[in-house]
Amino acid sequence: MSDDKAIFAANKKRFLGAWPRIADELTGYLKDAKMPDNAVQWFTKSLDYNTPGGKLNRGISVVDTVEILLGKQLEGEEYYKVAILGWCIELLQAFFLVSDDIMDQSVTRRGQPCWYRVTESGIPPISNVGNIAINDAFMLEASIYQLLRRHFKSHPCYVQFFETFQDVTFKTEMGQLIDLITAPEDKVDLSQFNLQRHSLIVIYKTAYYSFYLPVALGMYYVGITSPALHEQAQSILIPMGEYFQIQDDYLDAFGTPEQIGKIGTDIIDNKCAWPINIALQKAAPEQRRLLDENYGVKNSDAEARVKKLYHELEIPAIYQKYEQESHVRVSKLIEQVDETPIDGASVGMKREVYAAFLRKIYARAK
Amino acid sequence: MSDDKAIFAANKKRFLGAWPRIADELTGYLKDAKMPDNAVQWFTKSLDYNTPGGKLNRGISVVDTVEILLGKQLEGEEYYKVAILGWCIELLQAFFLVSDDIMDQSVTRRGQPCWYRVTESGIPPISNVGNIAINDAFMLEASIYQLLRRHFKSHPCYVQFFETFQDVTFKTEMGQLIDLITAPEDKVDLSQFNLQRHSLIVIYKTAYYSFYLPVALGMYYVGITSPALHEQAQSILIPMGEYFQIQDDYLDAFGTPEQIGKIGTDIIDNKCAWPINIALQKAAPEQRRLLDENYGVKNSDAEARVKKLYHELEIPAIYQKYEQESHVRVSKLIEQVDETPIDGASVGMKREVYAAFLRKIYARAK
Ligand SMILES: [Mg+2]
Ligand SMILES: [Mg+2]
Ligand SMILES: [Mg+2]
Ligand SMILES: [Mg+2]
Ligand SMILES: [Mg+2]
Ligand SMILES: [Mg+2]
Repeated sequence: MSDDKAIFAANKKRFLGAWPRIADELTGYLKDAKMPDNAVQWFTKSLDYNTPGGKLNRGISVVDTVEILLGKQLEGEEYYKVAILGWCIELLQAFFLVSDDIMDQSVTRRGQPCWYRVTESGIPPISNVGNIAINDAFMLEASIYQLLRRHFKSHPCYVQFFETFQDVTFKTEMGQLIDLITAPEDKVDLSQFNLQRHSLIVIYKTAYYSFYLPVALGMYYVGITSPALHEQAQSILIPMGEYFQIQDDYLDAFGTPEQIGKIGTDIIDNKCAWPINIALQKAAPEQRRLLDENYGVKNSDAEARVKKLYHELEIPAIYQKYEQESHVRVSKLIEQVDETPIDGASVGMKREVYAAFLRKIYARAK
Repeated sequence: MSDDKAIFAANKKRFLGAWPRIADELTGYLKDAKMPDNAVQWFTKSLDYNTPGGKLNRGISVVDTVEILLGKQLEGEEYYKVAILGWCIELLQAFFLVSDDIMDQSVTRRGQPCWYRVTESGIPPISNVGNIAINDAFMLEASIYQLLRRHFKSHPCYVQFFETFQDVTFKTEMGQLIDLITAPEDKVDLSQFNLQRHSLIVIYKTAYYSFYLPVALGMYYVGITSPALHEQAQSILIPMGEYFQIQDDYLDAFGTPEQIGKIGTDIIDNKCAWPINIALQKAAPEQRRLLDENYGVKNSDAEARVKKLYHELEIPAIYQKYEQESHVRVSKLIEQVDETPIDGASVGMKREVYAAFLRKIYARAK
């Protein structure tokens, strides 16, 4: 294991260590409200099934951001407090994933059945979770605001915390809407796709909550409230998020299963992914016909024909060029960050917050 | 038309008059974010299809409350501001109803297909709304906080507004959870039912957002923040909400279609309604057997057998007694309200806020 990996594993372990106490607190709200035992058990199971099983990058990034900004390791109750902000992002993510899986009629998530597909809940009298998962998703989201209220009511940025969560949530829902109406799985219409639409979907559906939100929470936590600095953070992190998703889309078509930890299905699923949008831009009329006839079609021969065309159109080379240019562009933006504290804050922004993100993201497929 | 009805009709007309401007503002957020036209159209349609079509009692009650507390009619921009708070409750209600209809697999709502069942959206390239309705429900909820932020950011009770919405939303979701796991439509198990469970479902699923929330928002709007007065409001409005739902449950089984504007289906739908819980309490073993065999069964003979037993068990008389006692109990609580302003507020609570609610609720079936 490299040093970076060992550090990340330790950070993840520490972050996971905060979860049981948070889950206890959340189920405690139901106990305080005298909810029946099976309701408390249900909510406990939903929390544990849906929240801590992912990579936790978003949540851990809040801790990383605060540690860099304060220039120290967090310990004890201070660590716990910042970890709560991180877990609030993971709860938001759980809310999105549980509901997205229903909307996409997905089968598995993180190597187990999607929550709505669980048929042995273990909590009588219900065995199938089914559409109760919709209400469970709501409760995962509502948990965020319960935690913020309990732990940050007296924080000077309490209002910014909940406004930022609300704002980013609404943006993510806008992104989900345009994704759903642009690329319905059962209705292939490539005339709906283009690079501009792809960019809008990616920025709204993924970049705000995955990239800007962790850093924004860390900045507010240490008292960096300057709107100019938050705009600057967006101007750096949103392109980074866009690059991240383009890389993800690229690897879905060109990565090996070992590289990406799963088998890519974007072509078969009619996803408005980056490679198809590049292909549409470059395709001659007969190539366009091939795409119309094979994209989103549920068989592997059709998928292979699309992939072959991707190679003919030299999409890997276009990707390499995009990746390099994107790295240069973002790096320059980071260099320009002024670290002097402003607007009465006691700490300034740190280039390392962005640089650490950049290293993680651009190294993924290397 | 009686005077009361004429006044209510005028109030409803005035309240509806504020909606187009609110809807415009909300769709404006998507336009500002450069969302594509069909996404803006989709959100516009979801807002209009799901928000203004109901009785609007909850929203109008915010206006009523403020007018009583300030002792004047609201006009112009002041009316609009208070109406926004009312429409925020209607958006919350729309969020609950759109998603509840999916969870219950209901077919119609307010005389038209449930939103998720709409098959001619009119917005290309999508015809069926289907599970996109889940994300639409999220966006209805998120709209509340966009409106609060835009219009109440500088109000001294901004924090109370959003905390109250969050808190009541979480409580309603708890109520929905216990309703879903107590009375799944496809699995009849009357041993899950009892009056205490019924009361918990009703209070959490309905009473907080339908009864306490409108008054709480009105109180905060005029500056009544005293926790004691808000507790008092709950102590009066929650029993009123409970009575309202018991009346609703009673009329579902005993009211004429003319009285209730629809045909009751609680028995066939296996609802944990008030009459069945009373019946379970009073039933002798063979009567219990009849209930086990006929409740929640999807045919009208079974339903008729349950209704016949309800009459044998004299549920109408029990209901009349409950209604009268509840009216006396709530009336006494209202009499005890002290109208003196406290905790630095410039206005005090007014008994008439509660009395007006009481008249509306207890007159419904008369
Ligand atoms: Mg999905
Ligand atoms: Mg999806
Ligand atoms: Mg992907
Ligand atoms: Mg329903
Ligand atoms: Mg329901
Ligand atoms: Mg009813």
